[in-house]
This record gives sequence, C-alpha cells and structure tokens, in this order.
Amino acid sequence: MGKRVGAQTVRLTHPPAVLSSAAVGGHMEGKGPLRDCFDELNEDHLWGQKTWEQAESTMQKHALGKALEKATLHEEDINYVLAGDLLNQCIGSTFSLRDTNIPFFGLYGACSTMGESLSLAAMLIDGGFARRAAALTSSHFCTAERQYRMPVPYGSQRTPTAQWTATAAGCCLLGETGEGPFVTHITTGRIVDKGITDPNNMGAAMAPAAYDTLSALFRDTQSSPADYDLIVTGDLGKLGHDIVVDLFARDGVDMTKNYDDCGLLLFDCEAQDMHCGGSGCGCSASVLCGYLLRGMREKRWNRLLFAPTGALLSPTSSFQGESIPGICHAVILSNTKEG
Amino acid sequence: MGKRVGAQTVRLTHPPAVLSSAAVGGHMEGKGPLRDCFDELNEDHLWGQKTWEQAESTMQKHALGKALEKATLHEEDINYVLAGDLLNQCIGSTFSLRDTNIPFFGLYGACSTMGESLSLAAMLIDGGFARRAAALTSSHFCTAERQYRMPVPYGSQRTPTAQWTATAAGCCLLGETGEGPFVTHITTGRIVDKGITDPNNMGAAMAPAAYDTLSALFRDTQSSPADYDLIVTGDLGKLGHDIVVDLFARDGVDMTKNYDDCGLLLFDCEAQDMHCGGSGCGCSASVLCGYLLRGMREKRWNRLLFAPTGALLSPTSSFQGESIPGICHAVILSNTKEG
Repeated sequence: MGKRVGAQTVRLTHPPAVLSSAAVGGHMEGKGPLRDCFDELNEDHLWGQKTWEQAESTMQKHALGKALEKATLHEEDINYVLAGDLLNQCIGSTFSLRDTNIPFFGLYGACSTMGESLSLAAMLIDGGFARRAAALTSSHFCTAERQYRMPVPYGSQRTPTAQWTATAAGCCLLGETGEGPFVTHITTGRIVDKGITDPNNMGAAMAPAAYDTLSALFRDTQSSPADYDLIVTGDLGKLGHDIVVDLFARDGVDMTKNYDDCGLLLFDCEAQDMHCGGSGCGCSASVLCGYLLRGMREKRWNRLLFAPTGALLSPTSSFQGESIPGICHAVILSNTKEG
Repeated sequence: MGKRVGAQTVRLTHPPAVLSSAAVGGHMEGKGPLRDCFDELNEDHLWGQKTWEQAESTMQKHALGKALEKATLHEEDINYVLAGDLLNQCIGSTFSLRDTNIPFFGLYGACSTMGESLSLAAMLIDGGFARRAAALTSSHFCTAERQYRMPVPYGSQRTPTAQWTATAAGCCLLGETGEGPFVTHITTGRIVDKGITDPNNMGAAMAPAAYDTLSALFRDTQSSPADYDLIVTGDLGKLGHDIVVDLFARDGVDMTKNYDDCGLLLFDCEAQDMHCGGSGCGCSASVLCGYLLRGMREKRWNRLLFAPTGALLSPTSSFQGESIPGICHAVILSNTKEG
C-alpha cells in the first residue's frame, strides 16, 4: 500500500526487494568498461537467429532466463512481466515472451522503459497484486538503426551529437520479500517538450524531462543530490548530461559531485568512437541490471537514484516537422527499507 | 490492496469507481448503430489538423477533456494517465499528452490497450498510489491503414476477413470513491500464438487469446458465462467471435446467450460494408466509454465482463514470416462493489 508524497511521487510502504537481475550484451558492450558486469556477451549480432529482430527477442529471453536462474525461480513464480522496447509495436518484447505463460503488460516508454517497468512492478507488489514481478527491456543497434535512421549497410555518417544504440537487454526481478536492494520511492514523469526537432540530438531533447522529474523528486521527498550516493540518468549522453548539470546550476543545485549517465557508463565514448554515448532501452537496463545493482549489493553505493529518460518521437512525427517530447521516470533504490 | 485469486486474477479490495467516461468518433462511427452514445462526432477525418496522426492525438485530447468535464475535474486532479495506441512509438498518445502535466505511463497492448490501461489504473488506485487515474486510447482508420497495410489513397481491396479500424478515442476516469460502476476483478492475459500468419485475419489470430483469458477468469473466479449480464470481447469481429463460441463449446461452456464483441457493436457490418467488423484501440475504448458504461449506469447491465484483445504483430514481423501473437486483458465491471 503506497503513500503519495507530493505531486508525482509515491513512497512504498513495504518496499519491494530486488531478487536478482541480469544483463546481456553484444560486441560493443563487451569492449566497453562494463564488460565484466554482463551475465552474457555475444559477438554474434544475430544471436544465432535469422533476423536482428529475432536476435533482440533472444536477448530478452536470455536476460529473463538468467535472472530467473540467479534467483532460483521459474516462470510460474512470476505474477507479471512488464516489458517493452523501441521496435514498432514492441515486437522485441512480444516475440520474446510468447513462449512463456507469464501474464504480460506491454509498455512503451522509449529509453525510459526500465524506469517505467520497475515503477509499475514495484507498485503491483506493494499493492498486494503480485508476489513477484519482472521488469524487462532491450534494444539492438541494428534494429534501431534500420527503423529510426538508416539501414546499417548504408554506412551513413553519424553526427557529433549522435548516440549509439546499445545491443543489450536487462531484466530485474522484484519480490515482496528479500535482502534488497529495495525500491523505496517512485517519481513518475510528465511529458516535457522544449521544441528540439533534431532526432540526432536526443540528449538535448530529453534533458529537460530529466530535470523536470528529478526536480519533482527532490521537491516531493524534500531531498537534495547530496542525499544520494549516486544519481544516474538514462541515455542522455554527454550533451544531455551537461545540460542537466547546467539546468540545476541555475537553481543553485550542485549536480557535479555524484551524477552520471548510463549512456556515458556503458561505453568509452572516445576510445569506442561513440560520439555522445550509448542509448536505447537496453542501455539503462543493462547498466542498472549489470553494473549498478551489483555495486549496491557490494555496498559501493547504498542509496541510488535511477532516472532513465525516453524520447517519445517516431520517424513519422519527425517527418511531419514535430518536436521531440521527452519523459523521465525515477526510482530510488536503497540498501535499507527505510530508504 | 488487492487480493490474488488464482493464477491470473486479482480481486480489488476497495473497487475503484468509474467517475466518468467519454467517447469521440469519426464519420463511419457516426453512421453506425452506436452514434447516439458518442460525446462528439466529427465528419472531418483531419479533425482540423494537418495530418492524420495529429488528428488522432486531437481525438485523444477531446476524449480526455470531455471525461474531465463530465466529472467536473481538472487535469491536476488526475494522478496518472495510462495511455497507448497503435501508432509506431505510440505517438497518438505522447503527442496528445505533451501539453498536459499529468504523470504518464505509456502502454502498448495493441487493441487490448483499454483493458490494460483500465487494469493498471484500477490497481494503482486500489493500491493507494493514486486517488484518480485516467485510461485513454485511440485509433484512426487512415493512420492505421498507412502504417499497417496500404496508404488509403491506393484504394486497395479488402479481404473478406478484414476488419475496419475505428476512428475513435475513449477515456475512462477511475477514482477511489464514487457511485460506480466499479472495477471489481482483473484478469491479465498471457501471450497466445496459435500460428496464424495472415495479418488480414486478426480475428482468428486473437480469438485463442480471448479464450485463454476468459477461461482463466472463469476458473480463477469460479464463475461461468451465466454469471454476467454481458460478456464483450474487443475487436475480434465476426470470425473471431464465432471461433471463441466454438472453442468454449468444446469445453461444454455456452457462450451463445450473452456474448458480443466491440467490433460487431460499433458498426452495422452489412450495411456499412465493414466485412468482419470494427477494430483498433479506439473501437473497444469507444464502445466501452460510450455504449457499455452508459448501459451500466442505466442498469441495462449490472455485471459486465469487458475483455479487449490485441494482435501483437508489426509489419516487420509479418514480412519476416512470423505468426501473430495475441493477448486479451479482462476486467469485471459491476454496479455493486461486491461484484
């Protein structure tokens, strides 16, 4: 039974526990600084399948399978799976889950999906509707490039503001009891659109949404950046990260001490020629499920603010000259139930 | 605080009330048998906008606006809006909501979206996370044809099994207190795929999912079709409806007395040349929000089983020879809290 605190935040009365998490990734992720945090890395961009879309579904299957294995659970132990991805009609998720029997809620939050799925999974458990639930998402460089930009074989040049869609999937299992970390607070984002129209500059489009949601969270919970060991947005990349720091600086809030971004953590932007950093639902999902949750279990961080961001555009809306609406869903994870 | 009953169903402890609902529709909907149940009908398929996608977002805005007006509420009274649609990246919803300040969860359940959004909205309220929440969805014949089949100006011939995507939107506001009807039970669907590959025969692809979820609901709640005044699936159309009747007949369960389908209710299939009936997220949404909830308020039906279905394919998956996964989310609505 949750308790509303402020306009956009709820505090969970019985904070659900992370039972396990798993991350899988591809070639570039295996060359990056977080390579040791993945449960599985595969050099084959088709993951043994015939198409990239099937490869993406296979990554989700592996992430879910590994998470279940690590928690010594079976799919019948999971009451709901909340999943989504970047593909049209979310086929990365629907085709990954069609062979399971887990009741399914399909989500679309673009690259914020891991935040949305964690939020809803935690509320379904705290509300007494589920004993356990899975939050699952993925992205694949080749499916995303073909769908959003140009087919990979064209070899299009990437702009300096471009980000690199992660080939990765992450799954986090939550349960009503466990050793933690725990989901203690959830701040749900509103759609923010400041008029950016360049689909190759997602960081600038999404940064105002991150600022909006993080501001709401600090206001609602009467906290400040210093109250967290680490604050991580999802996939804003270098430019978006710096915009968030600037926006908060105008309010006199210092974000320079403990604020990072999943898009900057997943890759070595310089060495891997990633321009502004990583992106895609699988980026924040794999950084959370691989790197961040491990760091919490190892007590490197005890209180983490995870705030993935999504750009809610489509190629059709861009062709029609529309600007890019952004959203950010934030979750506080803590090693104690008190948060 | 919900209570799990069986493998896929929850009973709501404090059943949320329908505060208001609104339906808007286009030309064909205004010629159909439910024309008097719409809050707004517009002959202009562009709804005064420049593109069909903008028209679809405008319909959602009008549906949300009318629902708020009917409940004498403002957007700041709504804690969450749960919305989705058929368009790539759900731009029907994201662009409709970017001017509001309501925290937003984006969903993708294809034509089952109204069932998914009602389910999650009801659980968020019963769990204490929201006082009020909105379930919102839409579809537009022209956006859907262009995206899934052929651009409308091509004048492609439609197959006999084809359905007609509704140009409509529906919004249902739920709250923790009210006069009802009430959402008393929720049965969340699993993905079911029986190998149908013809994207012009959605009814056959989705019928096994409807059978699966309705069977789970009857089993979990120990009820039978006779316990409901009306059972309505969403957008199976004529063929899918008849398949569901047949599948239950094999189990000795009689669905011939009180079972209808939103796709058959919205249009006069013969007179309007609709082939197998209506479809699209907006079909079940507008039939629920316009016709069915009015009938409940007028006590024509006191206990209603609403079970919209979705086909979780994309053009890409069909081009790759994949079959069509289906899903069905069911909700019991009752004029009494006891259900």
